[in-house]
Amino acid sequence: MGFDVERVLSELTLEEKAALTSGADFWHLEPVERLGIPSIMVADGPHGLRKQTTSSDHLGLGEAEPATCFPTAAALGSTWDVDLVRRVGEALGRETRAQDVAVLLGPGVNIKRSPLCGRNFEYVSEDPVVSGEVGAALVEGIQSQGVGTSLKHYAVNNQETDRLRVSADVDERTLREIYLPAFERVVTRARPWTVMCAYNKVNGTYASEHHWLLTRVLRDEWGFDGLVVSDWGAVHDRVAALAAGLDLQMPGAGPRPDEQVVAAVREGRLDEALLDQAARRVLHLVARSLPARDEPGEVDVDAHHALAREAAAAGCVLLRNEPVDGAPLLPLTGEDVLVVGELARTPRYQGAGSSQVNPTRLDDALTSLRRTLGDVPFTPGYTLENGPTGDDASLLEAAVAAAGRAGTVVAFLGLPASDESEGYDRPRLGLPDNQVALLHALSAVTPRVVVVLANGSAVDMPWRDDAAAILETWLGGQAGGSAVADVLTGAVAPAGRLTETIPLRLEDTPAFGAFPGEHGHVRYGEGVLVGYRWYDTRKLDVAFPFGHGLTYTRFGYDDVAAAVRGAGADVTVDVRVRVTNLGERAGAEVVQLYVRDLEASVVRPVRELKAFAKVALEPGESRELAFTLAPRDLAYWHRGLGRWVVEGGTFAIEVGASSRDVRGTVEVDVVGEPLWGALTEMSTIAEWLEHPVGAALLAPLLEPPPGEPGLDDLDPSTLAMMLQMPARAVVDTGFAPIDHDGLADLVARANA
Amino acid sequence: MGFDVERVLSELTLEEKAALTSGADFWHLEPVERLGIPSIMVADGPHGLRKQTTSSDHLGLGEAEPATCFPTAAALGSTWDVDLVRRVGEALGRETRAQDVAVLLGPGVNIKRSPLCGRNFEYVSEDPVVSGEVGAALVEGIQSQGVGTSLKHYAVNNQETDRLRVSADVDERTLREIYLPAFERVVTRARPWTVMCAYNKVNGTYASEHHWLLTRVLRDEWGFDGLVVSDWGAVHDRVAALAAGLDLQMPGAGPRPDEQVVAAVREGRLDEALLDQAARRVLHLVARSLPARDEPGEVDVDAHHALAREAAAAGCVLLRNEPVDGAPLLPLTGEDVLVVGELARTPRYQGAGSSQVNPTRLDDALTSLRRTLGDVPFTPGYTLENGPTGDDASLLEAAVAAAGRAGTVVAFLGLPASDESEGYDRPRLGLPDNQVALLHALSAVTPRVVVVLANGSAVDMPWRDDAAAILETWLGGQAGGSAVADVLTGAVAPAGRLTETIPLRLEDTPAFGAFPGEHGHVRYGEGVLVGYRWYDTRKLDVAFPFGHGLTYTRFGYDDVAAAVRGAGADVTVDVRVRVTNLGERAGAEVVQLYVRDLEASVVRPVRELKAFAKVALEPGESRELAFTLAPRDLAYWHRGLGRWVVEGGTFAIEVGASSRDVRGTVEVDVVGEPLWGALTEMSTIAEWLEHPVGAALLAPLLEPPPGEPGLDDLDPSTLAMMLQMPARAVVDTGFAPIDHDGLADLVARANA
Repeated sequence: MGFDVERVLSELTLEEKAALTSGADFWHLEPVERLGIPSIMVADGPHGLRKQTTSSDHLGLGEAEPATCFPTAAALGSTWDVDLVRRVGEALGRETRAQDVAVLLGPGVNIKRSPLCGRNFEYVSEDPVVSGEVGAALVEGIQSQGVGTSLKHYAVNNQETDRLRVSADVDERTLREIYLPAFERVVTRARPWTVMCAYNKVNGTYASEHHWLLTRVLRDEWGFDGLVVSDWGAVHDRVAALAAGLDLQMPGAGPRPDEQVVAAVREGRLDEALLDQAARRVLHLVARSLPARDEPGEVDVDAHHALAREAAAAGCVLLRNEPVDGAPLLPLTGEDVLVVGELARTPRYQGAGSSQVNPTRLDDALTSLRRTLGDVPFTPGYTLENGPTGDDASLLEAAVAAAGRAGTVVAFLGLPASDESEGYDRPRLGLPDNQVALLHALSAVTPRVVVVLANGSAVDMPWRDDAAAILETWLGGQAGGSAVADVLTGAVAPAGRLTETIPLRLEDTPAFGAFPGEHGHVRYGEGVLVGYRWYDTRKLDVAFPFGHGLTYTRFGYDDVAAAVRGAGADVTVDVRVRVTNLGERAGAEVVQLYVRDLEASVVRPVRELKAFAKVALEPGESRELAFTLAPRDLAYWHRGLGRWVVEGGTFAIEVGASSRDVRGTVEVDVVGEPLWGALTEMSTIAEWLEHPVGAALLAPLLEPPPGEPGLDDLDPSTLAMMLQMPARAVVDTGFAPIDHDGLADLVARANA
Repeated sequence: MGFDVERVLSELTLEEKAALTSGADFWHLEPVERLGIPSIMVADGPHGLRKQTTSSDHLGLGEAEPATCFPTAAALGSTWDVDLVRRVGEALGRETRAQDVAVLLGPGVNIKRSPLCGRNFEYVSEDPVVSGEVGAALVEGIQSQGVGTSLKHYAVNNQETDRLRVSADVDERTLREIYLPAFERVVTRARPWTVMCAYNKVNGTYASEHHWLLTRVLRDEWGFDGLVVSDWGAVHDRVAALAAGLDLQMPGAGPRPDEQVVAAVREGRLDEALLDQAARRVLHLVARSLPARDEPGEVDVDAHHALAREAAAAGCVLLRNEPVDGAPLLPLTGEDVLVVGELARTPRYQGAGSSQVNPTRLDDALTSLRRTLGDVPFTPGYTLENGPTGDDASLLEAAVAAAGRAGTVVAFLGLPASDESEGYDRPRLGLPDNQVALLHALSAVTPRVVVVLANGSAVDMPWRDDAAAILETWLGGQAGGSAVADVLTGAVAPAGRLTETIPLRLEDTPAFGAFPGEHGHVRYGEGVLVGYRWYDTRKLDVAFPFGHGLTYTRFGYDDVAAAVRGAGADVTVDVRVRVTNLGERAGAEVVQLYVRDLEASVVRPVRELKAFAKVALEPGESRELAFTLAPRDLAYWHRGLGRWVVEGGTFAIEVGASSRDVRGTVEVDVVGEPLWGALTEMSTIAEWLEHPVGAALLAPLLEPPPGEPGLDDLDPSTLAMMLQMPARAVVDTGFAPIDHDGLADLVARANA
């Protein structure tokens, strides 16, 4: 069933090679029938298979084959549980294989730059380490089933507004430290079969034509050996895209782009070797996907539903669980519970757009809760755009009346479906007014209010003191309803942690004022200060910090220790910590390891997550965890030198339960690597004096003639000014007794 | 004594022309002796003449002829009094002329992007309107005396760190709205004889070689007809600089750069007409400076000192004056006053660097206060780096003991001299620890503490509740000591207002995390949200807002009215307000007019100052003020169209006493100008439908075939997604029944 890629390639005509590097239609690649190369199919993901049943509609969003709708990336990422995520990936892979689809188009690991990005529910986190770890586990799981993935959207696609045109204007350090490393981690660790380029431009060049992104970084630096596919419609200049490293244009766009490629090769404007390379990668993709077609396998729909339920529960983040009458409200005791909120019976469980799955079944929370708690009363409380019609004022009134008679009120709130979609950004950060009004009215009649949230991205919570308990369920997939019932009733302990900060106000968010940009450009003005890196470094209060999440027990951290081995570019730091379940119930803790550079010569975030581990502990159980930090975990991207550098100095190793709940800190001293580069006439006196060769050459020249003031005689202000002056300026002002030729000679000798 | 510039130019050799366009030495231009063209001298400013007595030292910072040290720009700007500033300018001009100096190198109108910029004391404000108005008044005043000015540092020189190399990376809208308009206002209104280019790069190109800045904007757009001189040592490539529009390299750098110019002309790499242009401008500068040499005039040193005193008092900003025992502490009643603080007898009155004046005399506050209040006791309280040595602990103890016996304590605090200098940036935002400790100890023994501050740029004030009254005097020049005594005793009412926000914390400042940049680049990430535009738009609390300042009376605002005339690019808004002195003492109010665009399609600062007026009123006196807003006052810079646009919608016209003390608001509806540009295949459906021609062409094509869903049938999410899609993507997905050729034809017809 396999074929020899190189042999086939050698038999292809120029026209056939060009044809191979663009799709046959919306979802299929071109076959080469005369050589027996079949057409393979790709289909949308990432949290379920969306295999369209119609050939293609106008927007490619028609009805699809039923498939398990697993929790969205927002919910799945919140589990911080890479083993669980890998199992979800395996299930996704089985469904993909069973449907004769070669590549599932996901996962998405774009960074949540702003909570207003309409597609955040498809992404994992504001942090690249969490995004990369979760993304890698998904890819490993899916690909273990003999089908491929498409890591997307590469790169810097952090908004929907004007996404097909906008240029993300962002400096290289920010790219290297924030927007690329999740892709890097997935590519180097999990080797996805394909990577999907983004729609947008990056610093003025379309991602589909971005040689630096598609070739220099992705292939030359990270060693990616798969295929780069365009996002659907992202190609503008097919020849430029091929030259930049894009292998496959999707969907098919008719014969013209292929003809342009042929003409470009014929006219010498495109090296045929580049086309061969792309065609080779397409053939290789086809070849590696064929074995699975022979054995499509079976899907156990019930087992996948159960897995979706497990994952959704594990992704629920218990934000708050304050005692009322001496005890926290969760888990529910089951008596006198009132369920309020249309979302309890009309669930929101995924977002809109290309990721929208046609689920195999759908659990709602109300039915699920009644299965455990009996026939608890329900009142809708508010209307939803896609629910039954009604009058909000009377619904609120009825809910308040019922709440007055209830023991505990569980209010299901969340964003309307139209607030979160691919294709446009969120109109606001808050819940709808009718829901906030309802909550406020409920809290006026009882302090026993539990809020259960369904939303794909952070909402602000000015109302948070109206609820003694808040459970964030994100968009939990088709089993989200039963999962939340499991958590509320205590059948399962909540195990999620925030992968994104919940800010107090939109005005506090890092990209505020520079999102979503204007007139074709969006300025990434906050640089590396994204997410908690912003809030923590600017010392801004937040509603709930990154990494936060409660469960039905609590944990102690002891014996935090850290030891440095090696130095500079070869340094490693071994970190150990003992975690103990101090409570009465089993539960899982997410132990987070942050690094803080206390003596950096550049702006660094006050702390950065570098590793984490999820550990399930029985009551009283204790476990020691070990982490090893690599040089990269201490490094920053040095724009001047164009590489990662470990700068010497003291680092704090912080272990904790959120970015603002550090339980143990160890300071370590790290010997850094040399940070000097080549000297020039424009290098400052300070840079010359830091350079081992340069210092020896320049210092004698700064000695004054007898009787004249020298460096040591300068007052501190003048000295400070002097040290910042480029060598050339010092020559110009006559401070050192050399001329420009002399300085040029010095430069040559210093760099020799 | 004059000469015919064109005739002289025509007689010059190529070598002579090249020589003319670089200095003869540190401070002199080249003469052309064979044609009787003399050498003229330029000298540092901006708040006093620094005419060096030595020929030139290593750093050009040697001893200088005595001259009146007027208040620094920080203090002068705080007066918001353009008539007073013009009088100071006239005095500066007289001193310049009397010393046979042709050009005073100032004023500086760079925007205070961060309070940490070491040279902020030389600049006026965080706001371009205040900067421009004050700068224009200074230029008008100085040049009225027949000598020239050099408007500096053009442009985007907002930090000292790495200033000779760093690239200010900033988008055009931010340049147009924040960093250029103060220069524009001064150039177009006051026509400075020269403009000085900055050291730094702007978006990668040295300001000295920046054709867009030096020629396209400065000359072609603003009509500048003077000479562009380099900052001292800012030229790197003389030929490139000449081609970009730099006329004069300073200081003289030996024969080589001139030889390079000659060679470039001979080899056809530089159009000789460009060199002629530069030489012509140098000759024109010489010619226009000659009349003043014949009549140097006399300087009345006493009168200038008195003017310096008047200006320093007018620039004092009374930040706080809370009642203690039923009455505010200021003005002092004269009984039982204790003066604390080394700065009372060792004044800080100017900053370090090229602006440092050798004053004709120097008033200290202690002596001045004693002249009015009698022999009030004094205790130094803390040490200063340049004051008498001592032990801080015992000085504090002695001060506290004395405070316990005093009626009112006047504590003189401020930044050490080495914190504020040209050549490097401030190391911290706060006062020295020894001073803060002293204040805290004083406040523990008495609530009657007045703090008098001397600093050139905002300091944070976490201690502000320790002082019932706070008077900010900035760096007030040689008469600052007597001026502050005038204000404290009530001989003069404080009349200053903040031209820069006083933030609560460094972490709140706009450029935090992106100042001063690293590795040769500084990202202007906050965009147009600089100063109060940032704090107000992000809704951040501040210590004292922009525009704030109290005096010894209070004012009422009535009858605020606004009326629109015209529309679009021809709109004007007439604003009127009545201001009344409601108190018992005479005083001056600074009436501030802010504009707020309530319906902008781009991010705009929540409010922007567009006009102001200072009005002195006797008790009970009332005056009606009138302002006329021009289209530019409502406009923003549209990056897509590359021009200013007035966007239609509702604007709020706010009149008030600070950016956070708006006393009257009128909303006006403005008819905007059309914002559509040329349509392309990548214009979105929304853009096509907004375009009068495009809509008529495209709309019929979006009508569905019978039985298929059309735009009106799409659900809101899909419609929102659709409207953002470029026309080409709609064609690609088959939604509209045309192909690429059809679309290209549509584009041509729409733009025809």
